Amino acid sequence: MDSKIHTVSASPNIAFIKYWGKRDHKLTLPFNSSVSMTLENPMLKTITSVKLSEKMKEDEIYINGNKIDSKDQRFNYMLGVIEQMRSKAKSDSKALVVSKNMFPTGSGLASSASGAAALSYALNSAFGLDMEPRELSKIARQVSGSGSRSIFGGFVVWHKGSIADGSDSYSEQIAPKSHWDELIDIICMVDSSRKKVSSTEGHELTARTSALFKSRIDFAENGAISSIQAIKSKDFQSLAQNIMRDSNNMHAVMLDSWPPIIYLNSSSLQAISVISELNESEGKYVAAYTFDAGPNPHIITTKANEHKVIEALDSVEGIKDKITGVVGDGPSMLDESESLIKD
Amino acid sequence: MDSKIHTVSASPNIAFIKYWGKRDHKLTLPFNSSVSMTLENPMLKTITSVKLSEKMKEDEIYINGNKIDSKDQRFNYMLGVIEQMRSKAKSDSKALVVSKNMFPTGSGLASSASGAAALSYALNSAFGLDMEPRELSKIARQVSGSGSRSIFGGFVVWHKGSIADGSDSYSEQIAPKSHWDELIDIICMVDSSRKKVSSTEGHELTARTSALFKSRIDFAENGAISSIQAIKSKDFQSLAQNIMRDSNNMHAVMLDSWPPIIYLNSSSLQAISVISELNESEGKYVAAYTFDAGPNPHIITTKANEHKVIEALDSVEGIKDKITGVVGDGPSMLDESESLIKD
Repeated sequence: MDSKIHTVSASPNIAFIKYWGKRDHKLTLPFNSSVSMTLENPMLKTITSVKLSEKMKEDEIYINGNKIDSKDQRFNYMLGVIEQMRSKAKSDSKALVVSKNMFPTGSGLASSASGAAALSYALNSAFGLDMEPRELSKIARQVSGSGSRSIFGGFVVWHKGSIADGSDSYSEQIAPKSHWDELIDIICMVDSSRKKVSSTEGHELTARTSALFKSRIDFAENGAISSIQAIKSKDFQSLAQNIMRDSNNMHAVMLDSWPPIIYLNSSSLQAISVISELNESEGKYVAAYTFDAGPNPHIITTKANEHKVIEALDSVEGIKDKITGVVGDGPSMLDESESLIKD
Repeated sequence: MDSKIHTVSASPNIAFIKYWGKRDHKLTLPFNSSVSMTLENPMLKTITSVKLSEKMKEDEIYINGNKIDSKDQRFNYMLGVIEQMRSKAKSDSKALVVSKNMFPTGSGLASSASGAAALSYALNSAFGLDMEPRELSKIARQVSGSGSRSIFGGFVVWHKGSIADGSDSYSEQIAPKSHWDELIDIICMVDSSRKKVSSTEGHELTARTSALFKSRIDFAENGAISSIQAIKSKDFQSLAQNIMRDSNNMHAVMLDSWPPIIYLNSSSLQAISVISELNESEGKYVAAYTFDAGPNPHIITTKANEHKVIEALDSVEGIKDKITGVVGDGPSMLDESESLIKD
């Protein structure tokens, strides 16, 4: 075991078919397969450095300069994968993990996917395990479900799997970014004063209380199959409809939860309206809206239509900023100069 | 057949368990039973006068001073019931129908239920049919589904029925208004700039396109059974939860329709927030929000809590006006001085 510092950069992804509801909480196993595009933009990265040490008494994790302790839910998920990797490597070393998100503070953008992917990748390197990406996607999955998809670049499917131990719930690439590099995600950061339900709580609440959730599972699974086909054939019309319908469907089962989970706000509703009107006036889909567990509109469109979409979004109140993500690569190793750990 | 003028006043109702989706469009047969409270307020009435004549060449219908012609969807539904009543009475007379809503213009309040009930009642009287209220509820149902419930005062269930000809899809009273006259509905009229989907189109769109709709049917049916019990035992805690969950569930399947049907706006979302916070701070349900096919919050509460609820609603932006409806009576015959038809 060396004491080198292993630093990885990873990107988030935007789900075209969403992951919501866990059939196994401990292993982070989903009810349905999900499909995403990995996003590239310098402002959207997470960088994670890992250093192993035989002198440390326990694993230590720092995120954005703050030490994460065992009271933090993230700690236990991250510790779990550190322990798995250590055991696989037959190592006794403790890990120092330092992670930093480039995301603008208060942007409401989730860093859990890129963070989970960067951590898994960096641990793999630090423990000298040389695991296949597919295996790493199962590791990342245990920290953050959507992180499983950020192990790959381009277009990615996370297979729901059916085995209880999670061994068949992994991600794989549908197509590399070069396959359809015209696609972009215009992320609109909006004001949000609403009290947040954490996505961990939300996953559980919906699966337990929504009377409609059981119908979502088949719908999303079919949406995943259809979206994979649409990506392979670069069929934006089919993909756009799948994207919007799945987002609406997920937010519907959220609204049907008790108490209801309402992430969409006035700006979100306006963005839905504006994009629907744009598509109507164009006589075809030129853009698709989608919303994760938050109010920020993600508008999936093509580079050719970017200007048109941004113009349309001008009338939406409450957008503080926009970041455009292009189709990106999976995690990459950074050299020593970019390490977050100073020896 | 006399040439007397028959004038009826009828009130709308607020559904605690909603009607959305028709198993038969022509007969207006629902997928699930619904439960409502009939609302009383002078501003919420519809008055309808009917006069039969052997001299008229065809039936004529006027609503709010405008002649309704056969291009108007309402005309055909109304003509259908006029013809049924005429045939039942073995009459040859044509009907002059003049109807007027007391509802404030542009309030977004639906007058179809009170209008359907008033029309059915007035035709029954004009044709001298002496039909039972239960039979009249089947007539009103064919003009407007929710109109079936406005044939009764107090608390009402509209049984979904299962027979194809609709003969077992009627309304009946669960309890008279005296049973629980503390209940009120604070109707908040809000700004709405959103393009409207008519409820007729919406019913069809959801049943045809929402993947979640099939799960709503059982949910709503169970909600109806539970709400009837809650009304009988005056259990506001159970009723309030049923009311809010059913409204959320209906708006969820609307959102899941394609294209999505989104009636809730920023004011609606704020009202949900404010009422949820009020209930949380009180440690029990003191009020329940519910939304029909529109953005107007209906807040079901008790007279004792009216002031508290109105205070809480003060922070909701976009409320133009509030009308409070108490539990009301079914349709009533008015005397000649209130006729809308001048001889």
